[in-house]
Amino acid sequence: MTELPVLPRLLVDDVVAAALKEDLGRAGDITSDATIPAEARASGTIAARTPGVIAGVPLAAATFRAVDPAVRFVVECGDGAAVGAGDGIARIDGPARTILAAERVALNFLGHLSGIATATRDLVERVAHTGARICDTRKTTPGLRALEKYAVRCGGGANHRFGLDDAVLIKDNHIAVAGGVAAAIEAARAFAGHLVKVEVEVDTLEQLHAAMAAEPDAVLLDNMTPDTLRAAVAIIDGRAIAEASGNVTRETVAAIAETGVDRISSGWITHSAPSLDVGLDVAAG
Amino acid sequence: MTELPVLPRLLVDDVVAAALKEDLGRAGDITSDATIPAEARASGTIAARTPGVIAGVPLAAATFRAVDPAVRFVVECGDGAAVGAGDGIARIDGPARTILAAERVALNFLGHLSGIATATRDLVERVAHTGARICDTRKTTPGLRALEKYAVRCGGGANHRFGLDDAVLIKDNHIAVAGGVAAAIEAARAFAGHLVKVEVEVDTLEQLHAAMAAEPDAVLLDNMTPDTLRAAVAIIDGRAIAEASGNVTRETVAAIAETGVDRISSGWITHSAPSLDVGLDVAAG
Amino acid sequence: MTELPVLPRLLVDDVVAAALKEDLGRAGDITSDATIPAEARASGTIAARTPGVIAGVPLAAATFRAVDPAVRFVVECGDGAAVGAGDGIARIDGPARTILAAERVALNFLGHLSGIATATRDLVERVAHTGARICDTRKTTPGLRALEKYAVRCGGGANHRFGLDDAVLIKDNHIAVAGGVAAAIEAARAFAGHLVKVEVEVDTLEQLHAAMAAEPDAVLLDNMTPDTLRAAVAIIDGRAIAEASGNVTRETVAAIAETGVDRISSGWITHSAPSLDVGLDVAAG
Amino acid sequence: MTELPVLPRLLVDDVVAAALKEDLGRAGDITSDATIPAEARASGTIAARTPGVIAGVPLAAATFRAVDPAVRFVVECGDGAAVGAGDGIARIDGPARTILAAERVALNFLGHLSGIATATRDLVERVAHTGARICDTRKTTPGLRALEKYAVRCGGGANHRFGLDDAVLIKDNHIAVAGGVAAAIEAARAFAGHLVKVEVEVDTLEQLHAAMAAEPDAVLLDNMTPDTLRAAVAIIDGRAIAEASGNVTRETVAAIAETGVDRISSGWITHSAPSLDVGLDVAAG
Amino acid sequence: MTELPVLPRLLVDDVVAAALKEDLGRAGDITSDATIPAEARASGTIAARTPGVIAGVPLAAATFRAVDPAVRFVVECGDGAAVGAGDGIARIDGPARTILAAERVALNFLGHLSGIATATRDLVERVAHTGARICDTRKTTPGLRALEKYAVRCGGGANHRFGLDDAVLIKDNHIAVAGGVAAAIEAARAFAGHLVKVEVEVDTLEQLHAAMAAEPDAVLLDNMTPDTLRAAVAIIDGRAIAEASGNVTRETVAAIAETGVDRISSGWITHSAPSLDVGLDVAAG
Amino acid sequence: MTELPVLPRLLVDDVVAAALKEDLGRAGDITSDATIPAEARASGTIAARTPGVIAGVPLAAATFRAVDPAVRFVVECGDGAAVGAGDGIARIDGPARTILAAERVALNFLGHLSGIATATRDLVERVAHTGARICDTRKTTPGLRALEKYAVRCGGGANHRFGLDDAVLIKDNHIAVAGGVAAAIEAARAFAGHLVKVEVEVDTLEQLHAAMAAEPDAVLLDNMTPDTLRAAVAIIDGRAIAEASGNVTRETVAAIAETGVDRISSGWITHSAPSLDVGLDVAAG
Repeated sequence: MTELPVLPRLLVDDVVAAALKEDLGRAGDITSDATIPAEARASGTIAARTPGVIAGVPLAAATFRAVDPAVRFVVECGDGAAVGAGDGIARIDGPARTILAAERVALNFLGHLSGIATATRDLVERVAHTGARICDTRKTTPGLRALEKYAVRCGGGANHRFGLDDAVLIKDNHIAVAGGVAAAIEAARAFAGHLVKVEVEVDTLEQLHAAMAAEPDAVLLDNMTPDTLRAAVAIIDGRAIAEASGNVTRETVAAIAETGVDRISSGWITHSAPSLDVGLDVAAG
Repeated sequence: MTELPVLPRLLVDDVVAAALKEDLGRAGDITSDATIPAEARASGTIAARTPGVIAGVPLAAATFRAVDPAVRFVVECGDGAAVGAGDGIARIDGPARTILAAERVALNFLGHLSGIATATRDLVERVAHTGARICDTRKTTPGLRALEKYAVRCGGGANHRFGLDDAVLIKDNHIAVAGGVAAAIEAARAFAGHLVKVEVEVDTLEQLHAAMAAEPDAVLLDNMTPDTLRAAVAIIDGRAIAEASGNVTRETVAAIAETGVDRISSGWITHSAPSLDVGLDVAAG
Repeated sequence: MTELPVLPRLLVDDVVAAALKEDLGRAGDITSDATIPAEARASGTIAARTPGVIAGVPLAAATFRAVDPAVRFVVECGDGAAVGAGDGIARIDGPARTILAAERVALNFLGHLSGIATATRDLVERVAHTGARICDTRKTTPGLRALEKYAVRCGGGANHRFGLDDAVLIKDNHIAVAGGVAAAIEAARAFAGHLVKVEVEVDTLEQLHAAMAAEPDAVLLDNMTPDTLRAAVAIIDGRAIAEASGNVTRETVAAIAETGVDRISSGWITHSAPSLDVGLDVAAG
Repeated sequence: MTELPVLPRLLVDDVVAAALKEDLGRAGDITSDATIPAEARASGTIAARTPGVIAGVPLAAATFRAVDPAVRFVVECGDGAAVGAGDGIARIDGPARTILAAERVALNFLGHLSGIATATRDLVERVAHTGARICDTRKTTPGLRALEKYAVRCGGGANHRFGLDDAVLIKDNHIAVAGGVAAAIEAARAFAGHLVKVEVEVDTLEQLHAAMAAEPDAVLLDNMTPDTLRAAVAIIDGRAIAEASGNVTRETVAAIAETGVDRISSGWITHSAPSLDVGLDVAAG
Repeated sequence: MTELPVLPRLLVDDVVAAALKEDLGRAGDITSDATIPAEARASGTIAARTPGVIAGVPLAAATFRAVDPAVRFVVECGDGAAVGAGDGIARIDGPARTILAAERVALNFLGHLSGIATATRDLVERVAHTGARICDTRKTTPGLRALEKYAVRCGGGANHRFGLDDAVLIKDNHIAVAGGVAAAIEAARAFAGHLVKVEVEVDTLEQLHAAMAAEPDAVLLDNMTPDTLRAAVAIIDGRAIAEASGNVTRETVAAIAETGVDRISSGWITHSAPSLDVGLDVAAG
Repeated sequence: MTELPVLPRLLVDDVVAAALKEDLGRAGDITSDATIPAEARASGTIAARTPGVIAGVPLAAATFRAVDPAVRFVVECGDGAAVGAGDGIARIDGPARTILAAERVALNFLGHLSGIATATRDLVERVAHTGARICDTRKTTPGLRALEKYAVRCGGGANHRFGLDDAVLIKDNHIAVAGGVAAAIEAARAFAGHLVKVEVEVDTLEQLHAAMAAEPDAVLLDNMTPDTLRAAVAIIDGRAIAEASGNVTRETVAAIAETGVDRISSGWITHSAPSLDVGLDVAAG
């Protein structure tokens, strides 16, 4: 069984249509319409130009098909696979105008999501010798959260909450107003459904002690040094999931993982991962 | 007169609403609803945590106001301004639940767009001693093209075409099918409205010679060395706008600019610029 | 602090606009337009005609204001309050055409949601002497899930998951394909984010024993007699949340609650609760 | 020729997509994605668990197909048919993940609309010995009016107006402002198109006499006793359609019908009918 | 009391937003953004350049306000009023960029709808000496039906049905399949709600005789000469509304009206009326 | 190679769906549903009733298919073709209810767009002996700009800019505020991307001289007599595209074209062209 989630067709169709309309504007692809006869056909291969991990192939396929359902799109390398420079990702075949009109949008999806998958995989591999899993945050590109969290999964990462509504994450401001960490957790438990987990963010070991007394499901250990993290893991002692965040870089991630935390969350993998360079080489006919 | 374009309210409202709905989901901000009384107020400052160039302040303002029009949002540092670490961008004041619920979406807009503006400004400053201007491409994040191209302007860059429909850009595949560069340009001129410019992409000086004979409005010189670019500029000799693309990095951009090209286009500034680190420090009351 | 969730303005506006468009059609309120002068004013009181619990006042207010922001809407009795027959809920005041055009849609929201709140409150009171809480299901009216789950909260109930995506609920079919309950829970834990809870549905005590070995966060005890429920609660022994479902009626709910279960879920409160009778008495001027 | 109206595909597709997105959220069916392999197939039968009248089969079919067009959906018992407990409604066959992901939304449509059809049929049968027809009102669930009025037709009922715009219904407030019932009807006739009917609501026989002088197309006799209704029918004497409303229950409906009225309108059949219990039994393979 | 219907705000807002987005595209009004400072103000008068009847003032007002709510829009001449060349329709005042950006869309609404009102008024005046009223058809511009039918009202015309769903209009094809005009009318009466009128289209007096036997609410007399129309009116004799259609021109309309028909329907007034020439003269400051 | 642009499927689908929903309303085609059995089939021919030029065939096809994909639609005469009275445009074949339900919307698209194509072709032929091309303006029907500009192309015309964002057109007000025509053009060049053309509107030869000094890409010569136009063309002398506008009628267009201008723009062809009369003759079976 794969661990890859499924991108629901209905959600994919909407985002693909929006992206195509953004590119086609009011007049469509005027260059191809002017220079390519309607009956011309083309084929081509989408390939990686640099090594990385692929994510977004179903979006690329949906993009071509949204322009013309007659396009043939054959996947050579599915989401989650690692590729080398030059490796083919998919072969396409269809009306030349369609292929040229959809090319950029399809590649924008693939490049953006594969960039996230690649950045995630890099961190994942650096902590593979530990029990820690890399996970994402809500620091995502507006409008693309579901896709970006999917890409994190393609890279081997795990997902943090998808929005403000599917889990409780109590921070400083909540604690201050609620009258302490115990009061805040209690309020959250009373308010939220029984299938909603409650996580608390703490900055110090003192805060952690106070928080643990209220039995949260998870604790976000923010901006702690490896030594402090190690102490925190000992305090938590398996009674809650231990998540580390802050200062997570390629250089620091292994040391953080080695402290024994369960999760390491990184906003960088979604908001700052560079795009993977993917291209389409088209041949006539 | 400023050179900053205006973000039409109608477009901003739609993208802000979509981003908020993505975050609020079906149940809203359950953490704040559970722990913060409806009548509690908060204020805070959005500030840059690292130096950069700001873009997206109107989106941040619209985000808070979309949750509650009663929020007061006072701009301290508008789009296009350079900031140092710790510099304030805006002060906000209003219902505590609103401020906490809108915070992440507002920061996601600001971080993403300021990242693009910052990356653009970096390139812009590296070519300031030349006549070249940095411009963007269609390699943008799906759904955010208009905003990202606005951010490029905030960084001091210029915009390339916004979609497939507002300018003609003739590439290899078009030329091959159309039967030569002259035929392709002619077809484009006959097809496109009289206010549409025609640009041609060339890889070699031979192609450039053939293209210039057909009098394009602009020429995209793709992946040429500085020496070849210099020769190309001489051939073009002011008869068309000379745009360089390919291998544009912080390291190479000055040398490219010094060849005399008019425009240097970079996909990197939109698809791979890291987010600028911006945060909101909230105080109760 | 109230336990009532907040209905995000953005979501309310969408559903209100859709309901009004459905009623106004292409030509608007032709009766009022024909018979009521534009300048006529009216006022009135929305009141309950039978006793119940109110839910949906913000939707009623938003409905009038969507037709004309100049309408004054003064709440007399907010969501979650119990009312007797004849008790006023809100007073409104404004252009007569607006009040007549918005009346039915506003009352439809109030009647539907208050019906759910009333049905919920009835069950809630019947189990008040126990530790059990009444909760809802995904058996909601298409398009109104968030509102209906809000109404359940207004009635004193709690919310089960909001969709297929915010919690795991493993049923027969999943267990059969996954190769046993332990395998299914393990797969779910590996797949889902660390803030996602895992619940398992069991029909027998044998299944319950197997399930508990895999340490689920919650167990759905489906269609068990009170005696079996009591045995199940003993087996679970606080290691998971115990939820009872099936055959939950006004008559049975107290006995179910007395078995010691933590949650009792009812589809009936959302899919079959009769509307609360609410009306608007309008006076000219 | 059937008297069943047709649900336009375009309207069905929109409401089905909205309902599915509401359930799939941002992450889809995480339980099935975690535990069911992509290639697993399943089949099953949708069946009634209690006797009733079916409505919504095309919506159920559209729901499965919206998730995956490859699902086979074979109707066993179409809209408008009466079923006994255990009777099959449709057989489905397709990818197991699709069937599990779409199940609840499909059943929610079927249960809700069949509940309305069942409640309608009950009243219809109680007045079958008279010339009266049962009809609906505008007291429908926000967003579902067209579907609910379709369900009323499936139950053998007739439709009242669909909105404020397709017929005139003059009530107290209109008459008061317009300066009498004759003035109101005249204003409506002058205002409305020649294919728009005009109905007047009256509470007393005196009002009825005044109203009949202005020759309305229909009269709504509100909250009258059977004796008064009988007198009203005699006064109307075939010159307008006589519609009774108010206090329409299973117990009273026959007596109302026997007064000779043409139509009996009930809000209860749309706003308070309990859902029909329908379920899906899934088998692997 | 005016006979003008009300344009519901919600419908106006949607169509105005769509029209503005169509004009602003992805980059907004680049001319004004480049040349007009943000703080510059302007004022101006919208005036008719040729005589006509005004329709669409609320849409023009909504257009300016959708770009910037701060624009002041003062109506000088409301919908339904006749204007001479040069007469002012509205005065506006606000940010110069807003006024220039919204100008064309506002004028497009005004010109299009006033053109329809003007064409309608022309026919209305030509039949003013008779009892006939001019009405529209479903031959409207896709997407603008409600607005165009409103404009017909502004011109003094009446509305035919708004869609396929709010009245029955039986034509040749229906009669042929249904097995005769009586069967068709009967089927329609059984199918449609009691507030739905039934109209039948006839081409000959023989068909008319057959149709009248089935007591339709209205008869559409298609493409008949004035003599035949006169005979038809005599046959109908007040038992149904008599509507004439076909060959309705400025030259023929009076003769058609003088036959005694109640309604004369014209597709021309909505699908072919030339736009009224309206302009905006802007002054700085 | 054809000069016809392509209507992107995604844009067509949206506008067709909106138009169908506008006609089907909440209850669909109640006449056909009442009188035509579901299994009845029909066929027919869409034909021109008067001579003209066809535009909109893909929209008509999409309309029928949106109601039922099973309809067979065979084009006899594609967009851009001239037809005589009675000439067939397309043959259709499918479920009778579908054909009757979609007929009016399909014909509305065809009639409206063919009217524009016909009006355009008329002007085009009147200037065929010159080098001038007829082009459109932004004076289009709200919501239909892309389609109307496509129809202009079908008539042999060319397109002016599609919106405020794809080209710069500097008018009086811009020049006044910007401080002269040179300053305005300079500001526009600095602001707009390098693929955006700049056009300037002038009313007099003095203005033209000033404008030409700033080297615009095009000049709009507004409301000039043929003699002045001829002088303007001499002044421009091939250094910019010369566009004439104002007082363009069937009678004047040839004389304007003979002055040597490159483009003649007409708002009339989009905002005032009468609809082409197209009809559908349906046969059962």
